[in-house]
Amino acid sequence: MSHIDLNADLGETTAGNPVADDAAMISLVSSANVACGFHAGDPHSIASTVRRAAEHGVNVGAHVGYQDAPGFGRRFIDYAPMELADEVLYQIGALSALAAAHGTKVSYVKPHGALYNAIVHHKEQAQAVIDGVRAFGDLPLMLLPGGVAVNLAEGRGMTVIREAFADRGYNPDGTLLSRREPGAVLGSAEEVLARVRQVAASGSVTAVDGTEVPVDAQSVCVHGDSPGAVEMTRAIVAGLRADGVSIRSFIEG
Amino acid sequence: MSHIDLNADLGETTAGNPVADDAAMISLVSSANVACGFHAGDPHSIASTVRRAAEHGVNVGAHVGYQDAPGFGRRFIDYAPMELADEVLYQIGALSALAAAHGTKVSYVKPHGALYNAIVHHKEQAQAVIDGVRAFGDLPLMLLPGGVAVNLAEGRGMTVIREAFADRGYNPDGTLLSRREPGAVLGSAEEVLARVRQVAASGSVTAVDGTEVPVDAQSVCVHGDSPGAVEMTRAIVAGLRADGVSIRSFIEG
Amino acid sequence: MSHIDLNADLGETTAGNPVADDAAMISLVSSANVACGFHAGDPHSIASTVRRAAEHGVNVGAHVGYQDAPGFGRRFIDYAPMELADEVLYQIGALSALAAAHGTKVSYVKPHGALYNAIVHHKEQAQAVIDGVRAFGDLPLMLLPGGVAVNLAEGRGMTVIREAFADRGYNPDGTLLSRREPGAVLGSAEEVLARVRQVAASGSVTAVDGTEVPVDAQSVCVHGDSPGAVEMTRAIVAGLRADGVSIRSFIEG
Amino acid sequence: MSHIDLNADLGETTAGNPVADDAAMISLVSSANVACGFHAGDPHSIASTVRRAAEHGVNVGAHVGYQDAPGFGRRFIDYAPMELADEVLYQIGALSALAAAHGTKVSYVKPHGALYNAIVHHKEQAQAVIDGVRAFGDLPLMLLPGGVAVNLAEGRGMTVIREAFADRGYNPDGTLLSRREPGAVLGSAEEVLARVRQVAASGSVTAVDGTEVPVDAQSVCVHGDSPGAVEMTRAIVAGLRADGVSIRSFIEG
Repeated sequence: MSHIDLNADLGETTAGNPVADDAAMISLVSSANVACGFHAGDPHSIASTVRRAAEHGVNVGAHVGYQDAPGFGRRFIDYAPMELADEVLYQIGALSALAAAHGTKVSYVKPHGALYNAIVHHKEQAQAVIDGVRAFGDLPLMLLPGGVAVNLAEGRGMTVIREAFADRGYNPDGTLLSRREPGAVLGSAEEVLARVRQVAASGSVTAVDGTEVPVDAQSVCVHGDSPGAVEMTRAIVAGLRADGVSIRSFIEG
Repeated sequence: MSHIDLNADLGETTAGNPVADDAAMISLVSSANVACGFHAGDPHSIASTVRRAAEHGVNVGAHVGYQDAPGFGRRFIDYAPMELADEVLYQIGALSALAAAHGTKVSYVKPHGALYNAIVHHKEQAQAVIDGVRAFGDLPLMLLPGGVAVNLAEGRGMTVIREAFADRGYNPDGTLLSRREPGAVLGSAEEVLARVRQVAASGSVTAVDGTEVPVDAQSVCVHGDSPGAVEMTRAIVAGLRADGVSIRSFIEG
Repeated sequence: MSHIDLNADLGETTAGNPVADDAAMISLVSSANVACGFHAGDPHSIASTVRRAAEHGVNVGAHVGYQDAPGFGRRFIDYAPMELADEVLYQIGALSALAAAHGTKVSYVKPHGALYNAIVHHKEQAQAVIDGVRAFGDLPLMLLPGGVAVNLAEGRGMTVIREAFADRGYNPDGTLLSRREPGAVLGSAEEVLARVRQVAASGSVTAVDGTEVPVDAQSVCVHGDSPGAVEMTRAIVAGLRADGVSIRSFIEG
Repeated sequence: MSHIDLNADLGETTAGNPVADDAAMISLVSSANVACGFHAGDPHSIASTVRRAAEHGVNVGAHVGYQDAPGFGRRFIDYAPMELADEVLYQIGALSALAAAHGTKVSYVKPHGALYNAIVHHKEQAQAVIDGVRAFGDLPLMLLPGGVAVNLAEGRGMTVIREAFADRGYNPDGTLLSRREPGAVLGSAEEVLARVRQVAASGSVTAVDGTEVPVDAQSVCVHGDSPGAVEMTRAIVAGLRADGVSIRSFIEG
């Protein structure tokens, strides 16, 4: 493998207050998970983000979330499935219109936050997300490998993009270490770069106990919202290039 | 003229609490101004409304409003124009996705509440609405006759649908009587029916002083959110049919 | 027992759209569970409701809910407990200021919707509600009999008001029948009146299988938000009066 | 004058995303204008801010704003005055409960953003703010010197705290330079420090044309939400101390 997709959560500026340095991050990644206004983002900041993505040839994904701006979409909400499906469709449609106006389009969908985590095991919500996406059209879903949403989506013939995390510790079974455990977040640029190189080379990650776990990842999620995030991403990109690995979207792949 | 368009504001159910009897109204009108979630409506109630509209062959309009659910979009907000344009585009896109999933589409755009009133005179906001609509595509705008938005839209080559109000009193210059003045709201079913018949016949309304005012209306707005609204609309439809006037969308006209 | 408290959920008017006939209901009940703006209500409608409550000598309770206006507080949200405690305190404080301005005060707290149901079994959220209430002051909590919140609150020395529902079917263990089961909602005014009389006489309810269940209820919840709600409540009040039972708040009791 | 009050806008963290370094700013100022959840802030972040204020002996002001989180309270909204008054009262009550739980109280009220600017000239909204504050109690209002709100408040016997801005250019008539004009924001730490020293010494500011304008300021507003804000505030505090001027709230003065 001589290329890998890097994705980051962007477009989350709300009420004029930026969460990440979107301009810098968009110049580095190949896929932008763009907030759709439900957990974060407003139409104007979303428009700025998709315009920048179009300028840099970065793919736009709909980062759909619970309608919970006060909680940033990070709290599980026990939706009626049909309401969730319609909210997913609404968000993709809204982002799609903004993207089209700036010469690009929604190329994939990635659930955000608590929704992303819920559909690993919550069958009704997983099905609702799938229903919402399919009501819009034939779009790939970016998901955590392993879990009910992956199975349901592939069972419906959808394309699933499995992603790995650049800076998170893994259990031997491929799940993420809880943030309360030591090793949950990789501490050094070296570890992070080694993780990304490994994914690019083999689609695998190395778990906290040294086991190599084949997660079949086609994309690596990098964070844009922490101090030093841009520098870390620059280091990843430089390291990959030095290895002869290019940053390229899974769409083009 | 042997036909007229009747339009009503629908899809405003929020948090499960209905504002109008959407099901009854949709069986009567030819154009549904569907809330887009900013001043009212949520994705699931909007989806129910567009599904019903599709079933009854009723045209779907995007009823775009200020992002002010607490104020139901009835309070002027001094938006930066670019923010407003992006919000208009976002709303049309969201509704469009829900409409497409139910076999219909957004056929026109009608601004709601304080935004509807503002763009009669507020040039920057009128331009922002036009920019937002055009960024989505070539859609007619439904507007109050006379005013800066009509002029700007027609100057840009857009189709403008002028509407008259079934139950509002008019000044001789074609503006609406302030709600604080006597005669602001027509009191009887007879007056309302006479108004609608006149619009259907000639596109004109009769002002409070008896003057006939040519407002060139192609649609009549009926209300669905007051007690007796459904009965009043049934009486209008029956009266028009008795005159040989059919209820038909301006789109088909 | 010659008196009973009747409580109803009020103050839920949002964006000018009423959910119940607050004016009529306030003339009938002795305790008003007033929405605090998180699941429903806005400061102006809340102010109208507390003013009316003060005029009728009706006790004001803080009807605290999840911050989820789109879901009307009816969806479980997995809050961090400290966030929930601060939200409870915030809501009580806001309502308290509006009540004081109209010559009354917050006399008790009743959780709303999904929060009400969650704290029957969710220990962390029950504790958070208790912490939020106690941070405000020494107020009684109105709760469903049986459940973790009751135990925790009484363990902390708080006064708990147990309530029964005028129109809901009960299981023999004192829990409510699921709304999906037959008998979940009592069908006739006779059944409802019999329920209220029984609670007034003995604090008990009769379960769906005929068992008498001692729920030790000091208040009966009547609904104001369904068609016929006001008429039903009038019938309850008239029936109780005919029995010589007065409608009186648990505070005065 | 050997002391001056420094005030800053704090507690605006929303959805976990900080707007300013509240912890650092609270260690420097004497008055904290704490967001109340309408334009920014959520109950938990507000609670953290009032707790810190209590620990540092910093006065808490209610920074009341329009209910417009998407616009951060920076857009004029044409409220019905009674709605605005009730929203002001609601916000003060909510903050008051959080403050009391942490051993402090609301000591003054400062309108935020577009509301702050509107009531310089908008009589109905100025009156509504005053009505809302007085419905809560006898609290000072912090305002821009000159303008209808100052006159109305003092006419009602309220205490008005006039404030000057540490980093804004002034017109000779005491109004602020538009942000579009050169000199609208003071460019250097020296200019800012000179401004604060002048206010501390005489309550006056020097306008862009060199005129000394007596604005009778009893407090100076410093910003916590721009890059370098904390360093700038540290420099101001150090400069004042070197002059023998202490940072002290107007309440204690």
